[in-house]
Order: sequence, then structure tokens, then C-alpha cells
Amino acid sequence: MPISIVVWAHLDERARQLIRDTLPDEAVHFADRHQPTAIDRQRLAEAEVVFGNLPAKSLPQSPRLRWMQLESVGFEYYQKSPEVTAALKISNLKGMFEWPAAETALAGVLALARGLRKILPAQTEARWIELEVRPETWLLHGKRALVLGAGSIGQRMRLLLEAFECEVHLFARRSPGADVRTREELAAQFAASDLVVCCLPKTPETIGLISRPLLESMRPTAIFVNIGRGAVVDEAALVDVLQQRRIGGAVIDVTLAEPVPPGHPLWQCPNTILTQHTGGGYHDELIDKARLFLKNFARYRKGEPVLNLIDLKQGY
Amino acid sequence: MPISIVVWAHLDERARQLIRDTLPDEAVHFADRHQPTAIDRQRLAEAEVVFGNLPAKSLPQSPRLRWMQLESVGFEYYQKSPEVTAALKISNLKGMFEWPAAETALAGVLALARGLRKILPAQTEARWIELEVRPETWLLHGKRALVLGAGSIGQRMRLLLEAFECEVHLFARRSPGADVRTREELAAQFAASDLVVCCLPKTPETIGLISRPLLESMRPTAIFVNIGRGAVVDEAALVDVLQQRRIGGAVIDVTLAEPVPPGHPLWQCPNTILTQHTGGGYHDELIDKARLFLKNFARYRKGEPVLNLIDLKQGY
Repeated sequence: MPISIVVWAHLDERARQLIRDTLPDEAVHFADRHQPTAIDRQRLAEAEVVFGNLPAKSLPQSPRLRWMQLESVGFEYYQKSPEVTAALKISNLKGMFEWPAAETALAGVLALARGLRKILPAQTEARWIELEVRPETWLLHGKRALVLGAGSIGQRMRLLLEAFECEVHLFARRSPGADVRTREELAAQFAASDLVVCCLPKTPETIGLISRPLLESMRPTAIFVNIGRGAVVDEAALVDVLQQRRIGGAVIDVTLAEPVPPGHPLWQCPNTILTQHTGGGYHDELIDKARLFLKNFARYRKGEPVLNLIDLKQGY
Repeated sequence: MPISIVVWAHLDERARQLIRDTLPDEAVHFADRHQPTAIDRQRLAEAEVVFGNLPAKSLPQSPRLRWMQLESVGFEYYQKSPEVTAALKISNLKGMFEWPAAETALAGVLALARGLRKILPAQTEARWIELEVRPETWLLHGKRALVLGAGSIGQRMRLLLEAFECEVHLFARRSPGADVRTREELAAQFAASDLVVCCLPKTPETIGLISRPLLESMRPTAIFVNIGRGAVVDEAALVDVLQQRRIGGAVIDVTLAEPVPPGHPLWQCPNTILTQHTGGGYHDELIDKARLFLKNFARYRKGEPVLNLIDLKQGY
């Protein structure tokens, strides 16, 4: 019996073709996520499996749905959706953004350290600014770093920073690898670090966790990086400490408003790089998402437990 | 007996003060390297030790000179100077630029990979270009890399690239750690690598080593990095392969002409970052140069062999 699958995820033709080619014997339907047709709705009503982040309010219209493979790592939206029942298994793309997110965070930190924030705009005007930039450059090597979050991105950040011979501390409530666990320990590490890298998801526990007092306690040369979620940080306080040059700079991938609106102060903050939520991306990401779905579907088909099942009560 | 020392190096006041404070019992004189006075010349005539890169033509006026501690790693200038006699010991700052050079090379590669070459200029105009940049980004993770040169910078590059789980091959003629030794092996690796990082000094053997055929053999997506010396590369050929998009991009710290003149094609080459010879710098470099000199002088004072003696016949 073919399994009825609706693909709701944002994919390109190459990724769609891979799914078609890999699952010739299943009943695969690609829905129009922007303007679902009557046929899309009919197939969703019969679907046993959905690949993509179906709106929670649509879930009651899919009574046969047993498994939804998200096209994201984040799942906070489903945590607060009453339509999600215990009968529905939901898995995410955990681990998929480990490398692109960690590389974007490091690209930003090294761009600040090695002066690229000035050099790249100067290059567009063919301006040689060696003597201005060189005395301002600094080294990541040997710095004291605090990584918040022990998920796959946080763990990868730790390993990469250790390659730069940084002293890395890891904050997480429950992960066995963490050495910073309480709010008090967190405050002490914030004040003592050269580099703070936030890799936390948005959960009821993490919203606003990086508060004004924590940001104000940072070293005057310290760099703050957010590759997690914008809501984890008091953004107004972050703008203040940057504008007042109370900290050394920032690399911000995620913000409360995305896109950041044109007049927003973060665009112009000193020593600040806005990476514009490109941290999770790379040119093959859509086909890799399809590959991960197909790998997980193979387990589902054989009756094995799917990987990366999410716990809707999970924090960080 | 105090030792007569002339400091010819470019230092700031903090570095000068460190030398004064550390050597109160030696006869230390700080010369004006731009406009040497009669007193400067007199002290040079008596000097036993010079810290700084004294012009070779001045060396015969310092008949008592026994040791010159360079303020650079490069020493090719003295290789071709007949005034340098075997009686003069010359040491360089080997290792001092390992971290800043490797970090600048990686900053450039990650800036290309993660789209910062576009994002940073866009930020100055408050332009949100996430959807343009994200599909173009790629990962350093897992790439195949060729490092040229097994000096301290090359060795550090290798270790850092291995932290990104790259497959790293190392080219050097004599270093025991190298796995690419002949011109034939070099050509094979050039054609097979995703990333080529040149960390070679300028020597009679390396000038023009990275030839047009090597550059033209590179993969269409490959990145070329030069953190060594401009003369090692056929720069006209490099401009051609970049302009014709025969390779993926470049990170160029060193060039034949520095500063790169305003109309030079390298400023505008596609996917090219000119880091403007900032690779060796960092804000504490002058005081660290003084520290290295003082450390080596302590050995000299005790009659121990000084560190980082250069072999004027040395290649790569």
C-alpha cells in the first residue's frame, strides 16, 4: 500500500525530483503552500505523512496524519499550538544548520577581528586602508569564550573556538557537557568573557534571558554574537551597549524583526555586523532537506522510530 | 660592560618604554630610522646589537655589529645584499605572524563562503539581502584544501582547516610534514582542490611558482588565497582567471604593488577580497615585537644561541 505523503516544504525542482525519483511507489503530492488548491486540501485530508511546516490550524483537517517532518530546526510555533495532539509525531531538522550557523558566527567574529568590516566596504571604492585597519585588528586566538546552548550548533561552536585555542565555557541547563548551569554562574561568565555566542532556541525559558544587566556587565572589548533567536536578547539593551561603546562589538544573525526595518538602529551600531539570518543557509540546503526527509521516511516505512522527534515541552 | 644596542625598529612609545625598563644596564639608543642624526650614526658605528631592519648598505658602517634582530619574518632583502657577511648573525620574527596571518586568511575564506563580501557593503546602505545571499552561501566544512608552505603560518592553516573537517594537503620541498613535494604533485593537487592557500615566502625558488597553467587548472568553484608574498603568483594570470570566472574567488593579502594602485583590476575582480596586507597585524604587535627582541636578547646576554637565526641560503 502506498503511503499518502504531502510535501508542503519550500523546495526547488531538483529537490522535488529527488523525492519523486526516490519514492516512486508512494502517493506523493506536492502542495502549493502559498495558495493551496482544492486538490491540495483533499490530499492533506488523506495524508499520513507531511514534509513541511503545516500551519497548526490546518492540522484538524488532516485526521489521518501520523508524522510531520518539519523543514526547520525551530519548533516553538508548535509548542503553543493547541491543535497539536499527542498522536502526531513531529520531527525537526536538528543538526542540519550546525555548520552553516557556526561558520557564519565565526565569519562575523573574524571579520570584526581582522578588520573586514572596514576593508570590504573600502574595497568597493578602491581605498587602501592598511595603515588605518592594521593597528585596530585583534586575534580570536586564546580568547575566553562563553557559548550559550549545547545543541548541535553550540557544540560545533565550542569545537571550532577550541581550534583557535580559546578557553570555552558552555551554558546549558541540562546538557552533560555544560559547565555553566545557573543564572548566577551565567552572570559571572558574562562579565569575564571576551566573546559570548548565543546559540539558544526561543523557548518560554529563554525569552529575554540575555538581559540588560548581563549585557551591561560585559567587558568593554567583548564581542556578543547571536546565532540563536532574536527573542532571547533584550534588543533595546543590546543597541544601547553598542551605541554607547560599552562592549566591543556584535555579530547579529537573528533579530526581533526580520527583515530589520530600514531605520532600525542595529544597521548603524558601531562594530556590528548584521548577517541577516543567512546563518542557516547554503546553496545545497533544499536538496539536503529533501535528503534528510527521505532518510527519515525510510525509517518510517520500515516501522523504525523516526529521528529527531521533538519534545514539545523541551527547553534548552 | 653594557652592550651597545641600537633600536632601529618601528615601535610605539609603550614598546620603547618596555625596552628601557627591561634593559636599564645596557647602552640602548633609539635611532630615527627616517632621518638618522649624527648621533644615530655614531651609535650605529659602535653598535654590537641592532633591533630592526637596518639598510644593507649601512652595514659596513657598523663594524662591531654581531647580531641583528629583524622586525619582520621576511628576510629576502638580505639574501641578495653583498654587505651581509658571515660574521653577522641575523634572526627574524618567525612565528610572530602565525595567528594573525592564518586568521586573516580564514576570515577572508569564511567571508566569501558566508556571503559577508556582499552583506557588509549592503549593511552600510541598510539593505536586507538575505534572500539574494542565502542561496549563494557555501560551507568551508569538508572541503579539500591545499596549503603551500610548511612554515608556522602554513602549519597553523593546516590545523585550523582540519577543525573544519577539511582534507588538507601540504606542499613543501623539505618539511617532513608535507605530502606534496614535486612540481608534478603540486599540479595534480591544484587541479583537485576546493581551496588553495599560499603561505610561501619570496625566495629565488618561489618567485612565479604559482603559474598561469596552475591557476587555469583550478576547479571552477575553487578559492585561491595568498597570505605569503605577491611575487609567488603570476598576478596577471590570477586577474584573468578571476575576471573570466574560471575559479570561484580569491582572498589576496599580498600583491606585487602595495598599496594596490586605484585603477588596478584586482580591486574589482569578482568574488575577490583584498585584505590589504593587514594579515600580519594586530593591535599589540609592536609591543610583542619588543617582547620577542627582549627574550632573544636575554639569551644573547647569557651567551646562549639566539632563536630564529636565519639561513640566508634558505628556501621554502
